[in-house]
Amino acid sequence: MEDLKEQYDSLCKEKNVIDLTRGKPSPEQLNLSEELDGILDGNFIQDGVDIRNYGEIKGLPSARKLGAELLDYSEEFILASSNSSLTLMGNLLSAFLFNGSGDAPWNELESISIICPVPGYDRHFAICEKLGIKMIKVPLIGDGPDMNIVEDLVKNDESIKGIWCNPKHSNPTGEIYSQDTVKRIANLPLIGASDFIVLWDNAYSVHDFTNSKKLSSIQEISQELNTFDNIATFGSTSKITFAGGGIAFLGASDKLMSLFLDYFSKFNFSPDKVNQARHVKFLKNRKGIEAHMKKLAALIKPKFELVDKYLNSLPEGLASWTKPTGGYFVSFDSKPGQASKIFDLCKTAGLNLTPIGSAFPYRRDQENSNIRIAPTYVSIEELEKAMQIFVCCVKLADEMEKNLVS
Amino acid sequence: MEDLKEQYDSLCKEKNVIDLTRGKPSPEQLNLSEELDGILDGNFIQDGVDIRNYGEIKGLPSARKLGAELLDYSEEFILASSNSSLTLMGNLLSAFLFNGSGDAPWNELESISIICPVPGYDRHFAICEKLGIKMIKVPLIGDGPDMNIVEDLVKNDESIKGIWCNPKHSNPTGEIYSQDTVKRIANLPLIGASDFIVLWDNAYSVHDFTNSKKLSSIQEISQELNTFDNIATFGSTSKITFAGGGIAFLGASDKLMSLFLDYFSKFNFSPDKVNQARHVKFLKNRKGIEAHMKKLAALIKPKFELVDKYLNSLPEGLASWTKPTGGYFVSFDSKPGQASKIFDLCKTAGLNLTPIGSAFPYRRDQENSNIRIAPTYVSIEELEKAMQIFVCCVKLADEMEKNLVS
Repeated sequence: MEDLKEQYDSLCKEKNVIDLTRGKPSPEQLNLSEELDGILDGNFIQDGVDIRNYGEIKGLPSARKLGAELLDYSEEFILASSNSSLTLMGNLLSAFLFNGSGDAPWNELESISIICPVPGYDRHFAICEKLGIKMIKVPLIGDGPDMNIVEDLVKNDESIKGIWCNPKHSNPTGEIYSQDTVKRIANLPLIGASDFIVLWDNAYSVHDFTNSKKLSSIQEISQELNTFDNIATFGSTSKITFAGGGIAFLGASDKLMSLFLDYFSKFNFSPDKVNQARHVKFLKNRKGIEAHMKKLAALIKPKFELVDKYLNSLPEGLASWTKPTGGYFVSFDSKPGQASKIFDLCKTAGLNLTPIGSAFPYRRDQENSNIRIAPTYVSIEELEKAMQIFVCCVKLADEMEKNLVS
Repeated sequence: MEDLKEQYDSLCKEKNVIDLTRGKPSPEQLNLSEELDGILDGNFIQDGVDIRNYGEIKGLPSARKLGAELLDYSEEFILASSNSSLTLMGNLLSAFLFNGSGDAPWNELESISIICPVPGYDRHFAICEKLGIKMIKVPLIGDGPDMNIVEDLVKNDESIKGIWCNPKHSNPTGEIYSQDTVKRIANLPLIGASDFIVLWDNAYSVHDFTNSKKLSSIQEISQELNTFDNIATFGSTSKITFAGGGIAFLGASDKLMSLFLDYFSKFNFSPDKVNQARHVKFLKNRKGIEAHMKKLAALIKPKFELVDKYLNSLPEGLASWTKPTGGYFVSFDSKPGQASKIFDLCKTAGLNLTPIGSAFPYRRDQENSNIRIAPTYVSIEELEKAMQIFVCCVKLADEMEKNLVS
């Protein structure tokens, strides 16, 4: 305890300021896309369209094709938009509120719930909370949500209208949904509400930094089950090119797309087609995307290895954590009750982590054990220091608790 | 009649296909901004920020300053966003629905109405209709809405929560609100609902093609009246640079901005700051904007003169129309009851006009007389042909009606 305290105090004295709060690309990652600006070289006609003018609410055909290759979808079912898939998710849920996903607008129903696998992506939960949609937690079990629980819920409660999924390199657990899980998810509309919607946020579809399990095609599976109208797929280039200046995609059947557009087109004339054309010229196709992702992986992989190395130095039984093969996060679980103490100790030592509870609906982690580590943004040197602080704080929090108890 | 019919038939035989439906910039206008792409020359740091990454939900400080100069606002009250002010309008109204503009969220109130000066901008009306907001028509009278009617309505009906305004070169009438009208509009929150909101869509703030009356500063006037919290100002570069690839602005007091951001930030991480930086470098400041607008005016003015010349060839008493000094439209009024006939005749002759009723809530022009002419997109040659067709159809529709009556 004394040694630990001394080590902690000396780390505090270093006056570090390190931010691991969000999954942001590093400047080195962004540099790999800098030719985007100016790449059009004065050519503003793409797919026969003047990309500078209004129009093409579904996006340029070539950009839609790029999105289809990114998301393993047919291009006829892809809409290409401006810079944020989050905005598309919000608009789709708003469309359901005002138009309904089947019969009545959700606004006219007494109660609407969505299943939220946890730990999950805080932004999904924030959208639901803002729109007044109830959230029901279901645990993730390593290859997706616990489908026995999900199926029970969906069978018995018609107010449950959907499920959030982040099926590959899930934020923050990094897990990849198994084929069986994908099938059971695509089957949910057949056992629950007929207008049940699967919110398939495939944000990390090509973001592998080492060999990864393949994600089954939700389009293929749902088309076989005849539930394709109930699947909304999302993705973007935000973690491929420029985080704030990329392009986003929605995958939806004709029926779902027209429901979406009936709402979305009231608030949007057209996406930024100039930026879409830049991305088409820069990434080209699936092969181009994969080659680019390899360069990014070379920058990202050492950071995840470093995090794992430090966490492995913890005494056995003190914690568990994920070992993702892609994506942007490591999900760390302390002993129950210790996460907020670790967070506070880190903060005092100059290391900012995502607030405890962020990965849960209503920001409540009842176990008080989950911490999301986002290692990509900082440099290797900063990350090394961050992990020294983190590991020290994990051990110190445990020692402090033992001393209180004894 | 016979001569007219012959002329019409011969125009039909030419198989023209001309589109005057929307206020789109012409390719020549867009060419004036083509140096935007590549203008950053590899420099992705602006205002000390990596413009490629996430963050800065309110936009780059330099882009906010540009927006302030465009909209005659203080930069501290400006948010700079991505490519559409329409999206900002939709998000602000959605924020009121879910958060309220004062006390209760609009969603929880029995009825919400907004005053819509007519003829007006179809997209304003489409947003209201989609969000379930009732629309109350008030006529425009040459220097803004009839404020006697507006004030009567607002005094007597607390369900009226706002008014749409397009105060300079109004779409489609081209009128500029007088100082007295601006003052009376800024005063509405003091005589109506305390959370009354003025939706000030200043879309054509610098879009003069000839000497124009100055629009009074709504910021200044509302700050004097202590109603600045009730004013939401919108604008964009859509009709300055690239229509589909510009940047948009919201002007709002601290209180209104935080209400907006509480909603908006759930669906957006950050605007496309790369494109914001491009615009800052390209337009620079108010002087730069004005110099650019002069070049655009040189392209636009001859088109409006041509429209006016053709309309002047109509026999007296057949129609009236506006003579704007800026903006994108001429608002044409036929004799009552003839607009849809003119529309149909034009369509058959290959000239597409904005659907009749578009400039009115619920697409209903009870007079059946208003037609919006949007001359900017087409070439001078096409416009000349379009006006030949239009003038012929206006005369023919009247002759046909006379023959039916006699």
